Amino acid sequence: MSEPDSKRLKTTGDEPEYELVYWPGIPGRGEFVRLLFEEAGVAYADPARTSPDKAVAQVLAATDAGANPPVLAVPVLKHGAVTLSQTPSILLYLATRLGLAPAATETAFYHLNQACLTILDGFCTEVHETHHPVATSLHYEEQKPEAKKRAKAFIEERAPKFLAYVQRLVDSGDGPWLHGDSLTYVDLVLFQCIDGTSYAFPKTMAQLKASGKYDGVFKHYEAVKERPNIKAYLASERRAKYGDGIWRHYPELEDTIEVEVTVNE
Amino acid sequence: MSEPDSKRLKTTGDEPEYELVYWPGIPGRGEFVRLLFEEAGVAYADPARTSPDKAVAQVLAATDAGANPPVLAVPVLKHGAVTLSQTPSILLYLATRLGLAPAATETAFYHLNQACLTILDGFCTEVHETHHPVATSLHYEEQKPEAKKRAKAFIEERAPKFLAYVQRLVDSGDGPWLHGDSLTYVDLVLFQCIDGTSYAFPKTMAQLKASGKYDGVFKHYEAVKERPNIKAYLASERRAKYGDGIWRHYPELEDTIEVEVTVNE
Repeated sequence: MSEPDSKRLKTTGDEPEYELVYWPGIPGRGEFVRLLFEEAGVAYADPARTSPDKAVAQVLAATDAGANPPVLAVPVLKHGAVTLSQTPSILLYLATRLGLAPAATETAFYHLNQACLTILDGFCTEVHETHHPVATSLHYEEQKPEAKKRAKAFIEERAPKFLAYVQRLVDSGDGPWLHGDSLTYVDLVLFQCIDGTSYAFPKTMAQLKASGKYDGVFKHYEAVKERPNIKAYLASERRAKYGDGIWRHYPELEDTIEVEVTVNE
Repeated sequence: MSEPDSKRLKTTGDEPEYELVYWPGIPGRGEFVRLLFEEAGVAYADPARTSPDKAVAQVLAATDAGANPPVLAVPVLKHGAVTLSQTPSILLYLATRLGLAPAATETAFYHLNQACLTILDGFCTEVHETHHPVATSLHYEEQKPEAKKRAKAFIEERAPKFLAYVQRLVDSGDGPWLHGDSLTYVDLVLFQCIDGTSYAFPKTMAQLKASGKYDGVFKHYEAVKERPNIKAYLASERRAKYGDGIWRHYPELEDTIEVEVTVNE
């Protein structure tokens, strides 16, 4: 938290209460967690910006975790004595504490989790599969023919299918947010997913946007982007640039494919 | 619920309180939900056994859902006025009500969700990818070369990696269950995942078991299988046979691949 513009974040003492452990240099899945802190204006330690490799290695190797079960992958949230992994679980844990989700005693808690999981399936996990359809242990260049096939299916079928679902989700609410009359963490998750997917597949997303069939989704995207804390964050140095993470831009994965926006959804 | 052996299940009235909507004829993701009901001895309607197609079509098309946001896929849980999708969210909602998880006020609620999501990633989602690495809309036969590559990576890297993680998870608890001193829903999730993956990749799982490196995982599997209610369920007609679902047995996907059990985990 050495960036000057991070000073606007509230702190609860000398050290931030929360720490996010994630790979350095990319937004990735860590970005969903960051967006919650930024929107809420809550300070968080983010060693990806200072001593990244050490932090990730330590958290993955931990065996003396006491009450904390082992974790397989980052992002990991550290909060006091708690160590927690798996993005959707971190988001649930944090969102209720940061005022970005109703309590678990309400059905909406589970409905928001449902929406979160579906959005992540479509625009995070499946986007990663487009460039790594065979093995995460191989380079993209080693699975390019398979990636082209997988990307074709994503462009022609999966992206329209998930966008249509999200449009239904937007329509089911009273607007502008997905649930109730105030923003929840799932609005931030959807924003990041549309942002990342638009980076990875710019032509595809532009054509799908131009179809006019998902106006609610893209309007929602702009509404989140204009939230004061999110706007300031996106303009800051804390926002990592896209690179070799989940959302990658390989022009060849969409250049030869015609988006069929009238495809069956 | 017309099977004779379903009579042992408790009912709260003429109609079961819960209904599970899922595809007929396969265990699939619906099976995780079924196992919770069966272990808890709670009656549930399961239209996959009676009028399956209608039930699935209705729930996916619902637009007048009122307080329920739209769902993209089954399984779907119906509970009073609540309609809920996404397996991990259904399981969280149900487990707290059926005495198979601590309350959401406890950190363990989020830790169990973390374990559940990781186990599903490795032994459910990734197993499905082995036979559908290009597109869910294509038949397996149309993506066989890619499936062989993906299966090779699963057999050599992913299955050992996730098994090693689960072994760490078992080791971190006091036994025999993954959390605390009584069975939780995640024990049932792990059981189903090991059972399904052993059906899909019998040679692979047999070799991994024979390695002796994951004894805790396979011992845990047997312990769940011996739970009285689970044992009765598995022997009943309610337990669907494996088929063309998530866990499929295509011998060619493992017959040409030598499992390297000493692979880096």
